[in-house]
Amino acid sequence: MRELEERVAGLLGKPEALFFPSGTMAQQVALRVHADRTGRRSFAGHPQTHLHVWENQGYNALHGLRFHPVGDRNELFGLDDLKAVREPLAAVVFELPQRDIGGVLPAFADLAAQTAWARRSGAAAHCDGARLWEAQTGYDATFAEISALFDTVYVSLYKGLEGVRGAVLAGDGETIGQAAVWRRRMGGAIADAWPLAAIALMGMDVNLPRMAEFRDHAQALARAINEDGFAHTTPDVPATPLFHVHLPLSRHDAQRAAEHLLRETGIRLFLYTRSNPDPRRCSFEVSVGISGLEFTPREVVELIRGLPSRV
Amino acid sequence: MRELEERVAGLLGKPEALFFPSGTMAQQVALRVHADRTGRRSFAGHPQTHLHVWENQGYNALHGLRFHPVGDRNELFGLDDLKAVREPLAAVVFELPQRDIGGVLPAFADLAAQTAWARRSGAAAHCDGARLWEAQTGYDATFAEISALFDTVYVSLYKGLEGVRGAVLAGDGETIGQAAVWRRRMGGAIADAWPLAAIALMGMDVNLPRMAEFRDHAQALARAINEDGFAHTTPDVPATPLFHVHLPLSRHDAQRAAEHLLRETGIRLFLYTRSNPDPRRCSFEVSVGISGLEFTPREVVELIRGLPSRV
Repeated sequence: MRELEERVAGLLGKPEALFFPSGTMAQQVALRVHADRTGRRSFAGHPQTHLHVWENQGYNALHGLRFHPVGDRNELFGLDDLKAVREPLAAVVFELPQRDIGGVLPAFADLAAQTAWARRSGAAAHCDGARLWEAQTGYDATFAEISALFDTVYVSLYKGLEGVRGAVLAGDGETIGQAAVWRRRMGGAIADAWPLAAIALMGMDVNLPRMAEFRDHAQALARAINEDGFAHTTPDVPATPLFHVHLPLSRHDAQRAAEHLLRETGIRLFLYTRSNPDPRRCSFEVSVGISGLEFTPREVVELIRGLPSRV
Repeated sequence: MRELEERVAGLLGKPEALFFPSGTMAQQVALRVHADRTGRRSFAGHPQTHLHVWENQGYNALHGLRFHPVGDRNELFGLDDLKAVREPLAAVVFELPQRDIGGVLPAFADLAAQTAWARRSGAAAHCDGARLWEAQTGYDATFAEISALFDTVYVSLYKGLEGVRGAVLAGDGETIGQAAVWRRRMGGAIADAWPLAAIALMGMDVNLPRMAEFRDHAQALARAINEDGFAHTTPDVPATPLFHVHLPLSRHDAQRAAEHLLRETGIRLFLYTRSNPDPRRCSFEVSVGISGLEFTPREVVELIRGLPSRV
């Protein structure tokens, strides 16, 4: 485990790193430490941040923190959106890439300006790097150069690494020291998590060097889908191995078609759809990893095109 | 003011009613009273409830309450979604109609089953009736029959009534008595609010009797838009004077076109657009009141059809 923590810290250019059994716990602890240090109870982030949408307001129920959404839920936020938050903030959470709008990345210069603004205002800049391994391929910058913009960085040990589970939080020694206290309080100081570390280290060896290849394949898939025109993607050109496909089908029809496809061919095109304000439409996420390379752009287009006939 | 409170209480079939300077305050107080009575700190409601999206988590910052979203953000929730909330609830908030998905109304029988379930579980059933005046036209039921499903009902004194501002909370004597204490604590016991009451009473005389007429016009507008086919509406057939129009335009293009339209013709087609997960699309809200009757379905279709040429 120590080897994993040191390797992540080294890659991210941070003095220390600490394993957590989940990203939920890692990020709550990061925010708690920032809040206790600043004496502020609010943090800001994208309206669709996992912290707010998927964790039953644990940040509040456990830590007495409040969330302030920034900008439009379907777009990246900008510096002006951040400045519109009129409340003292303990931290600003930056998710790289912004998964729920299709894996979009802010320009590096925008990100630098936003994190600098946050820190000038007395807030910590925290990176939700659940998919930072994938995000890095979208920047002309190393992991350490990206991480240098942030006080704390959380990375996931599964997702892009195709590992089992677990998370690592990286930062300076004082912050990570305080995080270790909260990890124990939350029941996350697990003695025998070394198998997770071993698998994550393998993932770093095998998957990390291939991220650019995954992104290139994602771009080829998206190009084919957009040229075909039945569906289309966001972003138009993926910046990372992740993108969304927008379908002219209701989500119930799309879900049914995908289930029929799975039964008939064994191919799972997507796990679930995302609803749309227009009930005639929905979308799903594509995340290219090793198994995603098996499908050619032509094959993916045909699978998508065939959905209406399988409803 | 007493006259207004008594008239609203009478119309809603509740023993008592209390004026508030804002709906934000009225609903926070209702939830606070329910929470203190039940000893529970969480309330549930639609993911797009005003309480959660537009009030900077005031329910938490002021009252220590937490919000639990129910169901999909683009759909009405159902009884199964409510049952999936595994947390003791102080209250369930039902918004009639559900504005942010196009003014959709649950079937009366569904609503009755859901409020009954909430009350059996020990939670209060609270009605966010900001647009209850409009919602009633979608039911084959009186205001009192709808209100009987709820422990507390909030109604707005502007919006559908085209008044200036203010809100009324109705319920039993004990609840409203406790609400009056919280109204004073929050600075809402305003001595000279009678002009607001006078205007609201006028609105009740003038606008309330015409709600069915507004709804019929909304239905005629929606039918024309859907027959034309350039844009389309949710719901397909509005249940109330409120519906959404989905446009095949980015929200920035739609906004620009609407500004040009306003400058060139003096007609404001919409105030703002709603973004969509697909950046090539957006939507806007139509709410038919007295001024909305001036536009024929044909005219509205032509205004919408003309948007791309004004980008």
